[in-house]
Amino acid sequence: MAQIPSSRTNGSGAQMRVFGLHVYGNFYECANTELLKSPEELEKVVLEAAREGGMTVLDIKSWKIGEGVSVVAIILESHITVHTWPEYRFATVDVYSCGGHTNPHRAFEVLAEALKPARVEKGVAERHLE
Amino acid sequence: MAQIPSSRTNGSGAQMRVFGLHVYGNFYECANTELLKSPEELEKVVLEAAREGGMTVLDIKSWKIGEGVSVVAIILESHITVHTWPEYRFATVDVYSCGGHTNPHRAFEVLAEALKPARVEKGVAERHLE
Repeated sequence: MAQIPSSRTNGSGAQMRVFGLHVYGNFYECANTELLKSPEELEKVVLEAAREGGMTVLDIKSWKIGEGVSVVAIILESHITVHTWPEYRFATVDVYSCGGHTNPHRAFEVLAEALKPARVEKGVAERHLE
Repeated sequence: MAQIPSSRTNGSGAQMRVFGLHVYGNFYECANTELLKSPEELEKVVLEAAREGGMTVLDIKSWKIGEGVSVVAIILESHITVHTWPEYRFATVDVYSCGGHTNPHRAFEVLAEALKPARVEKGVAERHLE
């Protein structure tokens, strides 16, 4: 357990006490099957997604589960996760970040650009406190 | 990175190749403010939620971020996360699990019973592969 200064609340001029957006999706028929199998390469993609989304990564960890991989990045602003099923060319991703300085949609795009799904189901959940 | 046998696909008689449910929520005006501040106690609650939801915890980790806490449990069946803002008596939780043997709604309830929010915004996202 680490003690870290907060960056999860909104900046000056905030309309909300906590501005949180959770962008999540199911990636079907991913063309990049090698990436679905590789914890090391998936971690690199998640780090790139966090960087492009303006997020600060505190820690990243991955697990090989059967054929698939789970990657969790804890970011100062909340979290990014990717779970993969290479046998089905399937992956699910979550980008949940707080603060107007972050862009979870952009981070989501980076993940899609890397995994190359033929079809994406995307959802957005507001995680706000007004 | 650990190698673990898969338990994220559905069991025999499955209608779907991957049956995933993501139950998420915003907890407002939590009465249990001490719990919102304690990484150690929050980890215990997350472990209890996983147990009640029939999930297998692979790893759990927590961070103190400003006044708040982030807890991430990676479970064999996907993940559970809790982020808290004690200064606002606010928390957000995600329980995402795959496989018909798990009950993410029950795990969500355990988290709510512990944090005692006055109001809950709950959502469910399907993370299926048919």
